[in-house]
Amino acid sequence: MDAIKVFCPATIANVSCGFDVLGLALDAVGDEMIVRKTPEKGIKITKITGQDLPTAINKNVAGVAGLTLLDKSDYDGGFEIEIDKRIKPGSGIGSSAASSAGVVWAMNHLLGNPFSNLELVQFAMEGEKLASDVAHADNVAPAIFGGFTLVRSYDPLDIISIPTPAELYATVIHPQIEIKTSESRKILKTNITLEKGIRQWGNLGGLVAGLFQNDYELIGRSLEDHIVEPIRSILIPEFDAIKNNSLEAGALGCGISGSGPSIFTLCKGEDMAKNVAQTMHKTYEPVGIDYDIHISKVNTHGVKIR
Amino acid sequence: MDAIKVFCPATIANVSCGFDVLGLALDAVGDEMIVRKTPEKGIKITKITGQDLPTAINKNVAGVAGLTLLDKSDYDGGFEIEIDKRIKPGSGIGSSAASSAGVVWAMNHLLGNPFSNLELVQFAMEGEKLASDVAHADNVAPAIFGGFTLVRSYDPLDIISIPTPAELYATVIHPQIEIKTSESRKILKTNITLEKGIRQWGNLGGLVAGLFQNDYELIGRSLEDHIVEPIRSILIPEFDAIKNNSLEAGALGCGISGSGPSIFTLCKGEDMAKNVAQTMHKTYEPVGIDYDIHISKVNTHGVKIR
Repeated sequence: MDAIKVFCPATIANVSCGFDVLGLALDAVGDEMIVRKTPEKGIKITKITGQDLPTAINKNVAGVAGLTLLDKSDYDGGFEIEIDKRIKPGSGIGSSAASSAGVVWAMNHLLGNPFSNLELVQFAMEGEKLASDVAHADNVAPAIFGGFTLVRSYDPLDIISIPTPAELYATVIHPQIEIKTSESRKILKTNITLEKGIRQWGNLGGLVAGLFQNDYELIGRSLEDHIVEPIRSILIPEFDAIKNNSLEAGALGCGISGSGPSIFTLCKGEDMAKNVAQTMHKTYEPVGIDYDIHISKVNTHGVKIR
Repeated sequence: MDAIKVFCPATIANVSCGFDVLGLALDAVGDEMIVRKTPEKGIKITKITGQDLPTAINKNVAGVAGLTLLDKSDYDGGFEIEIDKRIKPGSGIGSSAASSAGVVWAMNHLLGNPFSNLELVQFAMEGEKLASDVAHADNVAPAIFGGFTLVRSYDPLDIISIPTPAELYATVIHPQIEIKTSESRKILKTNITLEKGIRQWGNLGGLVAGLFQNDYELIGRSLEDHIVEPIRSILIPEFDAIKNNSLEAGALGCGISGSGPSIFTLCKGEDMAKNVAQTMHKTYEPVGIDYDIHISKVNTHGVKIR
């Protein structure tokens, strides 16, 4: 095979109690990408539609991630990439991670899968480094592995797949204001109280147990964040209203997606997810800020062939 | 039934990355207790063997826990309690919790089980409050539920049972120096860095996932504690030597049991647990401090009839 078209999923990182370690992949929103083998060495981004992004390899996350893989492989040729960028940059649902993850997954596929998913995550992390100065894995890991992933450790990189209950949906609202990941990290405090830490790891343990046991109620109870959400939510207009109304409409839990501004909920079943979307519309229409709403099943496959 | 004899298991709280939320029950070490219904109201501790402890109801954790249950029940009579105290107080393997948990479990059994396990934990926590000024649940929960338990939240109290891999053993060394729980809490810092918090909840997520998946390697990798262990281990003579030698002998992981001074390891299979015990003997014999070593399967039943 010399060319492949892939779907590169959007992702929700942090997931309330899993700051910097947990993430999940979405199904209904993501980029599309065509990757072609070329006899010439190197990587070329031939076309980007949907968003105005640089095609220069060293300025594009897909270029940087792809080059990292190419450097490690013994393949003689190169690749051409076309990106249909459907995830808006700065949305908080892993726009850069989708491009980084998609390109390395597609290249690996075209080369006969010489690299493991864990290695792909490491290559894609180089793209994340370009995007936000830090080589995070909490978006690229679920984009590549699919479902829920836990980054247990960075040194060495240790990624654990957590099972996804069959009826788990996410509803996400993206208020179109820009919050840069690097900015939203700066406002975090370097220290937290031990007491809040204990609540956070109690909740993360509960969330992981809930996912293993298909216990939707436990998943919902565990979606608490007393550390980051109180600080970052200030940057998101009407965060509290969206959260309160979504929970009232039946959402299992609600929090900030990644570093925001997107707000996610988890829901049991598509009907509940749609109810929550309606409530979000009603809440945000009067605000006067443009927004998108996505309803999606949790994507247990990650990047996939289109 | 008017009388019952029960085994009240020792427990390991914290379990490295699960400070204040995680605990597990042991099988090979615990108290024994006989509880009898009496026509007279109230509770009487008629006999304590093994340790020199007060029989006055308000000064004994079993008395306090038992009275709490009695207050909530509509039973007209009372109970007599005999305790064979085999767990040394101040050992860090839940000595007070075993008495508190055992007495409420036995009384509930004699009354026809009117109370849930969660309610029993709440009664037993009153005993813990007497013992250490704080109504902790991380020892009484595994003593009552058995296996591994996660205290996800205290308000409301939410206890999650985590499955136990079939070949999981613990080897515990109890150096006979006294460290009071209240003292060992005082040396902890009120604040931690966010970075260490992230590592801790990453590890707790990994440990819970490892227990669900019977992944002994993942359980081992996740048994890390960068927050409490570096501070408390200073109080325990030869902690580092015990830890390093146990890991070298094959233990999956090693840490402080509760607030110490006991040091626990988790092991895959009885042979490994025995190897680790031998290594502990070799390491501690020259130290000149008395010690006990316990080898135990994880007890998935909690308190049980003898």
